[in-house]
Amino acid sequence: VGKGRTESFSDGVLAVAITLLSFDLHASPGRVHLWSQVVHQWPSFAAYAVSFYVIGVIWVTHHGLFALITRVDRVLLFENLLLLMFVVAIPFTTATLAEYIQSASAADARTAVLLYGLSDIGMAFSFTAMFARVVRHGLLAMPVDPVTARRAVRRFGLGTVGYPAAMAAGLIWPPLILAGITVLTAYYMLEETHIDPAAGPPGAGGSGSAGAFRADDG
Amino acid sequence: VGKGRTESFSDGVLAVAITLLSFDLHASPGRVHLWSQVVHQWPSFAAYAVSFYVIGVIWVTHHGLFALITRVDRVLLFENLLLLMFVVAIPFTTATLAEYIQSASAADARTAVLLYGLSDIGMAFSFTAMFARVVRHGLLAMPVDPVTARRAVRRFGLGTVGYPAAMAAGLIWPPLILAGITVLTAYYMLEETHIDPAAGPPGAGGSGSAGAFRADDG
Amino acid sequence: VGKGRTESFSDGVLAVAITLLSFDLHASPGRVHLWSQVVHQWPSFAAYAVSFYVIGVIWVTHHGLFALITRVDRVLLFENLLLLMFVVAIPFTTATLAEYIQSASAADARTAVLLYGLSDIGMAFSFTAMFARVVRHGLLAMPVDPVTARRAVRRFGLGTVGYPAAMAAGLIWPPLILAGITVLTAYYMLEETHIDPAAGPPGAGGSGSAGAFRADDG
Amino acid sequence: VGKGRTESFSDGVLAVAITLLSFDLHASPGRVHLWSQVVHQWPSFAAYAVSFYVIGVIWVTHHGLFALITRVDRVLLFENLLLLMFVVAIPFTTATLAEYIQSASAADARTAVLLYGLSDIGMAFSFTAMFARVVRHGLLAMPVDPVTARRAVRRFGLGTVGYPAAMAAGLIWPPLILAGITVLTAYYMLEETHIDPAAGPPGAGGSGSAGAFRADDG
Repeated sequence: VGKGRTESFSDGVLAVAITLLSFDLHASPGRVHLWSQVVHQWPSFAAYAVSFYVIGVIWVTHHGLFALITRVDRVLLFENLLLLMFVVAIPFTTATLAEYIQSASAADARTAVLLYGLSDIGMAFSFTAMFARVVRHGLLAMPVDPVTARRAVRRFGLGTVGYPAAMAAGLIWPPLILAGITVLTAYYMLEETHIDPAAGPPGAGGSGSAGAFRADDG
Repeated sequence: VGKGRTESFSDGVLAVAITLLSFDLHASPGRVHLWSQVVHQWPSFAAYAVSFYVIGVIWVTHHGLFALITRVDRVLLFENLLLLMFVVAIPFTTATLAEYIQSASAADARTAVLLYGLSDIGMAFSFTAMFARVVRHGLLAMPVDPVTARRAVRRFGLGTVGYPAAMAAGLIWPPLILAGITVLTAYYMLEETHIDPAAGPPGAGGSGSAGAFRADDG
Repeated sequence: VGKGRTESFSDGVLAVAITLLSFDLHASPGRVHLWSQVVHQWPSFAAYAVSFYVIGVIWVTHHGLFALITRVDRVLLFENLLLLMFVVAIPFTTATLAEYIQSASAADARTAVLLYGLSDIGMAFSFTAMFARVVRHGLLAMPVDPVTARRAVRRFGLGTVGYPAAMAAGLIWPPLILAGITVLTAYYMLEETHIDPAAGPPGAGGSGSAGAFRADDG
Repeated sequence: VGKGRTESFSDGVLAVAITLLSFDLHASPGRVHLWSQVVHQWPSFAAYAVSFYVIGVIWVTHHGLFALITRVDRVLLFENLLLLMFVVAIPFTTATLAEYIQSASAADARTAVLLYGLSDIGMAFSFTAMFARVVRHGLLAMPVDPVTARRAVRRFGLGTVGYPAAMAAGLIWPPLILAGITVLTAYYMLEETHIDPAAGPPGAGGSGSAGAFRADDG
């Protein structure tokens, strides 16, 4: 399958997964007032917001990676499905984390942190495997310049360290996993803006491997 | 990430979110006749129809905004995710509004109005932030002509005033929020038709910043 | 918004709606053997298959209509949202029909037939309104040739008569609505194949208004 | 409808179906610890992973088939809808298999194996019918070369034999259906990598019928 279709299929899966996050939000009439339900569900709202940006960053990173390459081989395709398999599990691990983060049972809260952490770590490692495949098997559009290479290594390397660290923090005190991943995600979003806009191609037709992780590729 | 992909990802999210609105419609066999179930569920059907057009208008506005620009920077991307985060919450706030709009508890009904209003207001303010970013940071394809600029300001300004006004009305009498948003949405849909069709490019290849909010850009 | 985006947004909504049809299929462990559950759920499977092809035909018809036009005006957009609103309700009306088609209460079965019929009729009339708009407001790519015009009128005219007829039959004996719509859908699918393949453009680049309802437009 | 739209509609349906697989994963607070819930749900996780790659392979095969052809006729469209109808049922048959694979009732476990097997077999036979249609009715872009033809026959032929064999094994001992389909899916994924990369077009613009089942078509 071609690169374009792998991207559009992945985009479709990411769009559905990000939307399904909202399935964990709900209210049902009963003895409890709606307002207390909402207040008691704060972990659901917090986890919803965090995972929304986590999947948003995955989508940005995915396109950054695919902008570097010209073709997709089957191993990359296999790894891409692995990545998506972890991403599609995020609505489940998010809902589970929200449900158990305040659990009276510390063991349950930790299991929920573990599940959420594993879906993120599986995602980060799939990305790193994809990046390694791309670099080592000549799938690149052109030799990456040192700046882009350093940024990509920093980006993927950070993920393989940052997500486990956030999970480890969460095993100590559960809410720390949300805090840690918020910091990580905010870094990813903001890091991308520190780019000299003058260097970008001005028109929609601009492209190129160097622009892969830039903000302004058309 | 490029403009085209941001649009297609956003389109995917909007398409899933608009379809998930139907999840609040359901009937289950029991002692109550189907006909009475349907009649008693009128708020679900009304809220479904209103939110369907609300998301429809969001989609139209989103494309109008993106037609004005040539590139996407990371802050805009961040704001776009914020916008989508509010939109994806609409199926939840719609279902909650439908469930509680006739609640015996006035407090519950008002909380539901507040939630529904906040998802709309969050959306309107995200749009305004995106428009401000586009104008102030040189993301425009070309300097917008005064007519387009005035229309865009009117469009985004109306949202930041209209949605809170509809919510305020709903806090007085809950059904007024649906009525208010229906009026607002109808205005958005109809306003767009008052365009001189002769001014539009005749072929599919036509484009341009001036046509961004026109009905006939190819 | 442009024609291409209206098509891709509509495609997204149709793809999600057709997939959500499967949500009515489920089995749960209990006293009843899985095999009997499946046998007793035959209306769910039958309704699933029928609605799957109904939405499939809607998708084919939608593209046939859009292949005729060069631009979309806001009234057409409004009508398109109306069409999608009825389509997105089909998973709900399908599930309700499957649930109540064998109901001991004849009134409940008829209500379910009515709901299912109304979602189809609303869809057929929205399509007819769209076709009328396209023809009367100069949105056509070029004057349609008489053959295409006659086929389009037959297609849309048949829907506005056929769906109400199937519903009427179902009000007499509920399963007749599924039988009627199966016949109608099969006709739509097969009618499209009676086309001279020699007349089609051989390459992927071929297009044209006359080919709008042909099988082989690229 | 054109080939491109049939592909993008099918992609949309496949993306939603693959994402809905995660709906069978869930945990709910109660007397049972989260960790035991996860352990006892191992069939859900196993079935999720297997079906994820099954739908992934369907997507790869679908594009391989469509890369061979230039146009779509209505019979092919009908068959494509049949294929999608079986694919969309996979989340249901996967959830049912996971639920009943460890059932105390051997009859229930076998019924679940049968349902899961039938959704796969129906998919494999729809693909074979599509391939036959494409070859016999001149929908090919150009006469396929012998290598591509042999690979396509092997691919589709394997499916019509392999899925029923996996189901037969599962009727003897239920978990064997998951093992059998894992082997089959792994073969499909790996088989595709044994291709001489030198033969592929280097740029994104490359295409051609011979490249349909290759890894590197742009």
